[in-house]
Amino acid sequence: MTFSITILGSNSAIPTLKRNPSSQVVNHNEHFFLVDCAEGTQLQLRRNHIKLQRINHIFISHLHGDHFFGLIGLISSMHLLGRAKELHVYAPQQLEEIIYIQLRASETELVYPLLFHPVNPETPEIIYENNSLNISTIPLNHRIPTCGFLFAEKTGKRRIRKQVMIDKRIPVTRIAEIKEGADFIDEGGMTLKNTDITDDPYTPRSYAYCSDTAYYEAMIPFIKNVDLLYHEATFLNDKASVAAEKFHSTALEAALIAKQANAGKLIIGHFSNRYESVSELVAEAKTEFPNVEAALDGKVFML
Amino acid sequence: MTFSITILGSNSAIPTLKRNPSSQVVNHNEHFFLVDCAEGTQLQLRRNHIKLQRINHIFISHLHGDHFFGLIGLISSMHLLGRAKELHVYAPQQLEEIIYIQLRASETELVYPLLFHPVNPETPEIIYENNSLNISTIPLNHRIPTCGFLFAEKTGKRRIRKQVMIDKRIPVTRIAEIKEGADFIDEGGMTLKNTDITDDPYTPRSYAYCSDTAYYEAMIPFIKNVDLLYHEATFLNDKASVAAEKFHSTALEAALIAKQANAGKLIIGHFSNRYESVSELVAEAKTEFPNVEAALDGKVFML
Repeated sequence: MTFSITILGSNSAIPTLKRNPSSQVVNHNEHFFLVDCAEGTQLQLRRNHIKLQRINHIFISHLHGDHFFGLIGLISSMHLLGRAKELHVYAPQQLEEIIYIQLRASETELVYPLLFHPVNPETPEIIYENNSLNISTIPLNHRIPTCGFLFAEKTGKRRIRKQVMIDKRIPVTRIAEIKEGADFIDEGGMTLKNTDITDDPYTPRSYAYCSDTAYYEAMIPFIKNVDLLYHEATFLNDKASVAAEKFHSTALEAALIAKQANAGKLIIGHFSNRYESVSELVAEAKTEFPNVEAALDGKVFML
Repeated sequence: MTFSITILGSNSAIPTLKRNPSSQVVNHNEHFFLVDCAEGTQLQLRRNHIKLQRINHIFISHLHGDHFFGLIGLISSMHLLGRAKELHVYAPQQLEEIIYIQLRASETELVYPLLFHPVNPETPEIIYENNSLNISTIPLNHRIPTCGFLFAEKTGKRRIRKQVMIDKRIPVTRIAEIKEGADFIDEGGMTLKNTDITDDPYTPRSYAYCSDTAYYEAMIPFIKNVDLLYHEATFLNDKASVAAEKFHSTALEAALIAKQANAGKLIIGHFSNRYESVSELVAEAKTEFPNVEAALDGKVFML
């Protein structure tokens, strides 16, 4: 089951020709979730060969422009391209009026249903759920109300061994209960124990997106043992006081969070324009947490 | 005196990797005027080596997103870069609240003065004036209220011949009146006729931006004898009925307007995504008006 993150933007505040501001696509089992949507995101989707209309769910962490200025353009392009499917937007309440005031100005009535789900960034809660995945908010500590998002797979079902299916002629009607743990009585009346005909479920995987935030240990319980952590690292640690003042983090602080959360891997992003190369930021983070990579535009991380 | 147009976007509605939607910079005598501001305009400025902060005046033709979705990002970047100078925005009134609702959401108080000048696109009027240039609105015919912009140089002053200045020792204090047409009495008491010591003023030049609009002959009196005309040409003429329905023009119609207006040169833009190459659009326009060029991204047109 695919579980990947494509980075569409890795810069902070101001777009440059090399790094767009925050946006990324989480592909879980061919469901495409967009996380933040800076100006230029629709072009970044094209550039990375992700079809606009495959995105059905958009999550906005907070209402600083470098995290949402591209949303209205994406919504409009989906409209102009004749979308029919629902689009779900999860964001702080104020964004709804920001969308509609712009649609009204252009006298646009969307040809598809836009479902706006107001999110209170200060309350951790599950905001999306399907058969295999929960998405929940992670309260962060930024200048304005901000949350991260945790993508957590649900514990899967037991996996029936293919060869057993064939050899023992297990009928389709019994599959559901066997996956739940039931034994199976075969044609000869013999009971096959569930553990002899199935394998354990896959270990659930998880991904946490934490941007923007100051160094904030209170997030750790929400991201404990996460497989992959995206944590902002706007500055090097020699700018720790600037970072704190602006409610941002340093690369070292991102690593300290990853370490305390016992994350499997850390990716850092939301880099300040002052860093043309981000290798020093990665190196700094590695002093506290070895498994670090920079989240540059176009990079894909697989779980 | 420089008078040039840099095309930042030549596409209609949806941005592509080759053509951004509408935006251009008019440089008149090192004053930089931005006309329309689609998503991605701030990056297009960077790509074309035009410093964001050199722009002091922005003109928005109408409130379809492909003409203004990049404005809030540009305004924000100017803020983050510590702008001090005034920024003037000329646009339909509704845009003011669209700007401020987004600034409020991010709790941003701009560090520079933003002066919003509401424009009524249906009333032709001078909306900007300096010593050498007038900018006025041109009512167009689009689905929502829309105006073009006419950049018209004022008639200049008479130009004193440099050699005469030296030979006749004309004092600086007399220059202003001679430029206005006064004769000059030299040290020997001899009257030098103005026409013998000056040349005629430069012929005033003009540029008209007309996008978006259906074929609309009523604009012709406003753009009569314009040196350079930018006219939208969203479609080829085999789509004339689609163009009319959407209040857009065909390349042929753009040429017919240029011809009737006796324009010096026509540049066409606002191309539909259906045209990967625009050579057919240029060829079609040339059947009615020979001096045509496509306004592709990055092109610079000098007057």
